Amino acid sequence: MPHALCDLHRLDASSALALIRGNEVTCVEYVEALLARIEQRDPVVKAWAFLDREHALAQARALDALPHNKRGPLHGLPVAVKDVILTKDQPTQYRSQAYASKVPIAMDAAPVMTLRASGALILGKTTTTEFATCQRGPETRNPHDPTRTAGGSSSGSGAAVGDFQVPIALGTQTGGSTIRPGSFNGIYAFKPTWNAISREGLKIYSLTCDTLGLYARSVADLKLLADAFRLEDDVPPPVEPLSLKGAKFGLVKTHVWPRAEEGTRAAWEKAKTLLVEEGAEVEEVDLPAEFEELWRLYVLSGEGRSAFLGDYLMHADVLDPLILSHVRNESKITRAQQLEGYDKIAALRPKLDAIASRYDALVTPSTVDEAIKLVEPDRFTGDASFNLMWTILQVPVLNVPGFAGPSGCPLGLSLVAPRYFDQHLLWVGEAVGRVWGEKGGWKSAL
Amino acid sequence: MPHALCDLHRLDASSALALIRGNEVTCVEYVEALLARIEQRDPVVKAWAFLDREHALAQARALDALPHNKRGPLHGLPVAVKDVILTKDQPTQYRSQAYASKVPIAMDAAPVMTLRASGALILGKTTTTEFATCQRGPETRNPHDPTRTAGGSSSGSGAAVGDFQVPIALGTQTGGSTIRPGSFNGIYAFKPTWNAISREGLKIYSLTCDTLGLYARSVADLKLLADAFRLEDDVPPPVEPLSLKGAKFGLVKTHVWPRAEEGTRAAWEKAKTLLVEEGAEVEEVDLPAEFEELWRLYVLSGEGRSAFLGDYLMHADVLDPLILSHVRNESKITRAQQLEGYDKIAALRPKLDAIASRYDALVTPSTVDEAIKLVEPDRFTGDASFNLMWTILQVPVLNVPGFAGPSGCPLGLSLVAPRYFDQHLLWVGEAVGRVWGEKGGWKSAL
Repeated sequence: MPHALCDLHRLDASSALALIRGNEVTCVEYVEALLARIEQRDPVVKAWAFLDREHALAQARALDALPHNKRGPLHGLPVAVKDVILTKDQPTQYRSQAYASKVPIAMDAAPVMTLRASGALILGKTTTTEFATCQRGPETRNPHDPTRTAGGSSSGSGAAVGDFQVPIALGTQTGGSTIRPGSFNGIYAFKPTWNAISREGLKIYSLTCDTLGLYARSVADLKLLADAFRLEDDVPPPVEPLSLKGAKFGLVKTHVWPRAEEGTRAAWEKAKTLLVEEGAEVEEVDLPAEFEELWRLYVLSGEGRSAFLGDYLMHADVLDPLILSHVRNESKITRAQQLEGYDKIAALRPKLDAIASRYDALVTPSTVDEAIKLVEPDRFTGDASFNLMWTILQVPVLNVPGFAGPSGCPLGLSLVAPRYFDQHLLWVGEAVGRVWGEKGGWKSAL
Repeated sequence: MPHALCDLHRLDASSALALIRGNEVTCVEYVEALLARIEQRDPVVKAWAFLDREHALAQARALDALPHNKRGPLHGLPVAVKDVILTKDQPTQYRSQAYASKVPIAMDAAPVMTLRASGALILGKTTTTEFATCQRGPETRNPHDPTRTAGGSSSGSGAAVGDFQVPIALGTQTGGSTIRPGSFNGIYAFKPTWNAISREGLKIYSLTCDTLGLYARSVADLKLLADAFRLEDDVPPPVEPLSLKGAKFGLVKTHVWPRAEEGTRAAWEKAKTLLVEEGAEVEEVDLPAEFEELWRLYVLSGEGRSAFLGDYLMHADVLDPLILSHVRNESKITRAQQLEGYDKIAALRPKLDAIASRYDALVTPSTVDEAIKLVEPDRFTGDASFNLMWTILQVPVLNVPGFAGPSGCPLGLSLVAPRYFDQHLLWVGEAVGRVWGEKGGWKSAL
């Protein structure tokens, strides 16, 4: 791991915070290193919706001034926050013309409060699609190949972490908005169990699906965050790492598998081979047919109908057509269909938990392939087909990077565990990530 | 109905708005009438957490200046907003020392956006218990008997509407926080279907239970709001009023009936008699035993554990012990129990819908009795036992006033319909309310 100060930005959060704890580096030095990286790379990557250098440094200075006995577990951690999450000291603009004001909404989202109280600093706000709902992307580019999308809707958060501009970022996921950018940017992306972290202060699209997402470049960093957010399983995972020898994985292609393209198909085979080589048992899992119904039952449009009514009445003229279509119920979803969706999905959740609990984790695709080319003017952020089911089932999902697509861009696969097995999933992810990361075939050239 | 300007405050919203529409009254005159009432009564009732006369009048002047073709369906409607709901122009303090700042959080909750876009003005913020979560009441007193509680947690909203200080108020309900004050203050209180109105900008306690609540002194007014919030049933109710002759009601005492006291027991008998006298069919409904489990499964503590973590880490020293106990999980709810709660409750929702759909509405108690005496220092806001089940089942509930408790204080009963039968429930409530209101035995002396 690099130790020269000029390479500080390359450290993961755990390593950087250890240096700060050991008085080898100050918070200001760390932030300055990140700001230098951002200055160098932002013209290409464009991950930031708002970043005030001086304000970031002021937060770092305040942290440096704290006596050691008042420092939190995340002391000195710079975090990027997706611009649909409220930050009291920085504007929240939702990539909507209706929220163009630079004046901050003076409230921290609950997760931001938790981070600040634990010693983190909010480095800046990262780009998103409109209200984290639409699929027309921001200007953000994939750091590994700027002709490609960084994914979305958590575009800037995924790109900034993948580009070593910040060690940790917050995203959100309603369909695939955390996992997809994670896969495309070659980083770990973690969508915890629904409602295990408060979603207060996150723009609402779907109450039953919206979940805070976490980005990092190591599982150790995600563990740090999981502890700060008190993601406690009923039974904590063992202290010693998972041995893959004898570990059991269920491979779930799902019925959308026909959408998987070359990169994901190759990663799938490679992943399986690597697990088997380590002595793990892998078996293909065919979910019962009723899970296929999930796509038909998908309730987002129905929930968007009420979620965006206020915005619609206030400023319909500047809203994306997708938002308008939700409020106008253009897909003609009846209330009865909405309820059928809620109720059938609710019945499937414990069934999925039961299936997942037979394995150390399920393995499933994160994306149909590596990041697609960025095509103006819509900059489509990619297909979320492989993510929707897990979001709506409210289970924890971890994108594990390590594979390369046909163009050499990064690509990950997802691990899935039953609800509230968040720490367990990270424990499994650490062991799996070591192997896929070393032997999966992709290394960051950044 | 009174028409003299000095009695403007006594009108329901529908009547007042008609006068404004007909140019018989200006928005400023209407607001002035309400402010006069408030000035006279606030020293006793104490319903307001924040009220800026000049700001209220400025909003009214702006509305009066609008050309007729730009006026919304709620043009000139003054609304009181519970102080856990964000208003961009007025502070939101949650009755928490941690939010004592008078600086507004510059964001309107989604329902506030809808109201403003429809022509309403935000008269002021009304009192609540801490975070609408705790049961220690604010200073607010019951307008019908200031020695008694106005209920909670939507204390000020219920009291202000009951006292003719404002025609419409917003509350919230997680347990019984809208229906209980409705019953205690002798007004209509409506908790619509969960997620039928966006909860963006309402403090989060329980994602699966929290619901916006609406207060009014007539069903016509609630209909006005329901239309503004686009609470559309799949099949709209008939235009002609419900005839109670032949209408069918299911009387659900629930297994907490032993908690019902003198006033509620008398109201129950009276209500039944009045419906029968009108020619309605009434039958007692025993819910299947599995519904009794709901109380055991109640998931609030588990949801409060994550909801309040940010506040806890930021300012535990000023939080109510109930909040602390949630975050610390003092009730030792396991994640498995939490999920069992979610899943079993989800399975009961369609079962309740099916039961309720056999009737025009279910009838069930709103409160154990009339408002209890206000006892310092905790000012306990009353028992929510009769409300919890319906909140967690996410069905629409309407408190219909009309009855008197043993001390002559008001008391209502609840009507319940299946999920997304919101307009239907108001339609039934209008017919039932007419009878209970005329013959139930209680008339406001205010």
